[in-house]
Amino acid sequence: MGRRYDTVSFLSDLGLIDETVGVVHAILRDAAPHARVIDLTHQIPAYDVRAGSLALARSIGYVPAGVVLAVVDAGERRPIAIEVADGEGVLLGPDNGVLASAVAMAGGAGRAVVLDDPAYHLPSPGAVLPARDVFAAVAGHLCNGVDLAALGTAVDADELLPGVVPLPRDAEGGGLQTDVLWVDRYGNCQLNIGPDDLAPWGHAEGMRLQITCGDVSNTTVRVVQRVASAHGLGAGSIGLALDHTGMLALVLERSSVADELRLGPGDQVTVAPLAEGTAAGAAGPGVSVPVTLRAT
Amino acid sequence: MGRRYDTVSFLSDLGLIDETVGVVHAILRDAAPHARVIDLTHQIPAYDVRAGSLALARSIGYVPAGVVLAVVDAGERRPIAIEVADGEGVLLGPDNGVLASAVAMAGGAGRAVVLDDPAYHLPSPGAVLPARDVFAAVAGHLCNGVDLAALGTAVDADELLPGVVPLPRDAEGGGLQTDVLWVDRYGNCQLNIGPDDLAPWGHAEGMRLQITCGDVSNTTVRVVQRVASAHGLGAGSIGLALDHTGMLALVLERSSVADELRLGPGDQVTVAPLAEGTAAGAAGPGVSVPVTLRAT
Amino acid sequence: MGRRYDTVSFLSDLGLIDETVGVVHAILRDAAPHARVIDLTHQIPAYDVRAGSLALARSIGYVPAGVVLAVVDAGERRPIAIEVADGEGVLLGPDNGVLASAVAMAGGAGRAVVLDDPAYHLPSPGAVLPARDVFAAVAGHLCNGVDLAALGTAVDADELLPGVVPLPRDAEGGGLQTDVLWVDRYGNCQLNIGPDDLAPWGHAEGMRLQITCGDVSNTTVRVVQRVASAHGLGAGSIGLALDHTGMLALVLERSSVADELRLGPGDQVTVAPLAEGTAAGAAGPGVSVPVTLRAT
Repeated sequence: MGRRYDTVSFLSDLGLIDETVGVVHAILRDAAPHARVIDLTHQIPAYDVRAGSLALARSIGYVPAGVVLAVVDAGERRPIAIEVADGEGVLLGPDNGVLASAVAMAGGAGRAVVLDDPAYHLPSPGAVLPARDVFAAVAGHLCNGVDLAALGTAVDADELLPGVVPLPRDAEGGGLQTDVLWVDRYGNCQLNIGPDDLAPWGHAEGMRLQITCGDVSNTTVRVVQRVASAHGLGAGSIGLALDHTGMLALVLERSSVADELRLGPGDQVTVAPLAEGTAAGAAGPGVSVPVTLRAT
Repeated sequence: MGRRYDTVSFLSDLGLIDETVGVVHAILRDAAPHARVIDLTHQIPAYDVRAGSLALARSIGYVPAGVVLAVVDAGERRPIAIEVADGEGVLLGPDNGVLASAVAMAGGAGRAVVLDDPAYHLPSPGAVLPARDVFAAVAGHLCNGVDLAALGTAVDADELLPGVVPLPRDAEGGGLQTDVLWVDRYGNCQLNIGPDDLAPWGHAEGMRLQITCGDVSNTTVRVVQRVASAHGLGAGSIGLALDHTGMLALVLERSSVADELRLGPGDQVTVAPLAEGTAAGAAGPGVSVPVTLRAT
Repeated sequence: MGRRYDTVSFLSDLGLIDETVGVVHAILRDAAPHARVIDLTHQIPAYDVRAGSLALARSIGYVPAGVVLAVVDAGERRPIAIEVADGEGVLLGPDNGVLASAVAMAGGAGRAVVLDDPAYHLPSPGAVLPARDVFAAVAGHLCNGVDLAALGTAVDADELLPGVVPLPRDAEGGGLQTDVLWVDRYGNCQLNIGPDDLAPWGHAEGMRLQITCGDVSNTTVRVVQRVASAHGLGAGSIGLALDHTGMLALVLERSSVADELRLGPGDQVTVAPLAEGTAAGAAGPGVSVPVTLRAT
């Protein structure tokens, strides 16, 4: 027998509007009554592997030793398990890259298996529901001390689908082309850059930069200020602040910058030094000027 | 004293936007600290006994021994408790049919009582809130070993309101008239038929059928394929697949068929062999043709 | 060491669409595995201290002994802890009034501290996230027996920000001007009055009153009936019923009175005896007449 686990941390795109997540809890309560299930979130947008991977990566440093269940877009790719931290944790999910960033942050993959031994699955009354018939069942067995190797065919972690993390790149015409990684509950837009990425233009709080977003037919250019937090920005002024994970985020004070700029996850934002002589640049310190350039 | 229980599985239409579900958890934590509460779902649409009954029936086979709380449209009918499986489980809910299918699936009713002894309820600071003042309180007592018979007046299970499950029936003009039982998170539409209901027309995967939905002023006719899963259907092609519960469901690949066909729970869909010579029938194998017949 | 706690009751405006609430659970599972976390609700509208304060006040009588975490609009005000009931409970939250009503209902404040000792916080990978870095961390220490006094600087409870509870007042032209305190899941509108506030006009069930809401350009006047519950009201008839917390609420039978009257939390409703000779007054007993008076 392997090590026993007593916590299952659970993230999914299953939503809470029906009983699927509850059934996973019920199966684990029955199979491994000593284990506690922590719901990280179940509102990853349906099929959104990128969003699930990012949420898991943001969480993994806080997750207790044990099993981690990441059931996002679980219908098509084979189910896998990856051991991390010398067996302190086992991550379960589909082989679609959702686990990759979290595994890397936990120190990289140890043993890995494809969960292809049906003896450790639940029989399905119809089609296989991976969350219920495979992942909940396997998580229960892991909690009860079944060794990873028993659960299926060993696989080299290098053969598993890697995750994809967008990197900022130089924008045409200067500046950095960034991606919105995440829009949080308050409408803050996390970009895929950290404070060091702005170093060529300075580190000073209060530094003003120009952002450009939207598409060719509807481009928005705004001045933003490098600030410590949204607090004190004043209505309508957009800040660029260090967020709770160490990345930079566009923020408004008590208002959604995602709504203001019509930004969502995956959208691109160019961040550049303030252009001289533009309408935006002429607006003076501390003022944010909305300029919408529509194609004619 | 009766048997003690250590799990309460909880389903409701109470939602999560306020503290009602949390207060039930708090009461149970206080009254029966040894018990664990499993939330099946709380997002049954308000007052929707049919949806609650179906979600409970889909869950019951996975629910651990213990108390099951099904608080859906609990305001008006008397609260009841029904023992199943020789006392392995006790289902609590209003006498409105919400428990009926689950009780049947658990082997049928044993003892039943109306929960009319106020000694086992909580006093209310205002009007009675059944989830809190009756069901949470009684669930706590059951977990602590109070026998069912003590909780109220014994009642014959035959006197309780039965559930209503819609059955498919022969459609005018041929085919089967079915009901949408459930739309899941991904927009799949579960029908009230299983694979055997299609037997007169064949069992072959790839078999093409015709569905008709909508009303007289806006009827939609589509060709659907009998498939193993939505995987590989291709954009816009509607499949009819065995779902995770053993029923047939209309599916699209990574898209909501409920949105596509404007279907919701309770809507009717006629399933029939493919008509010869229709526009739909003429479209050739593997192609799904949307045909909207509007009244003039 | 102080008393150990084994329950953390958790209310917030953090929502469930991302992993923040889950991370708080994960931290507590790791730091204090013996403790159980009860989620009261996390769907307090973002930044809405008043709504959070009211939900906490409605819950507090049911919350088990232990730690109470109320993380609403936690970004700007200093984090505090307040002991109640001789140490049976410790409430944690920002010093923005969110705890005030609950503390009062729990018998008033005992010791209070500002949570300013970073030794009991978690390091942040970026900006401080109070729910995670301060409140979850401190709740874990309290569960493990760290005494309140160790967690920061003692403060006089009188120096903390009080809560604000709107009181009904005499309306111009007669009647009571009330506030909508809360709209529940079913659309019932709780007012800030109890049955005794209507005493000048009688206590009889069936008593008819007139309500006025909306603004000067779009005023709605309706007749409402004092009823025991919405049950039996009939479609379209508005009732004024004792709710589950002991307050009066506007209700419709199986329908949302908030939608019907376009009311939300914080809106004002004037409740008055039925005016003689008005259209509403002339409508006869038991009939509710919608009258919209638009400015010309």
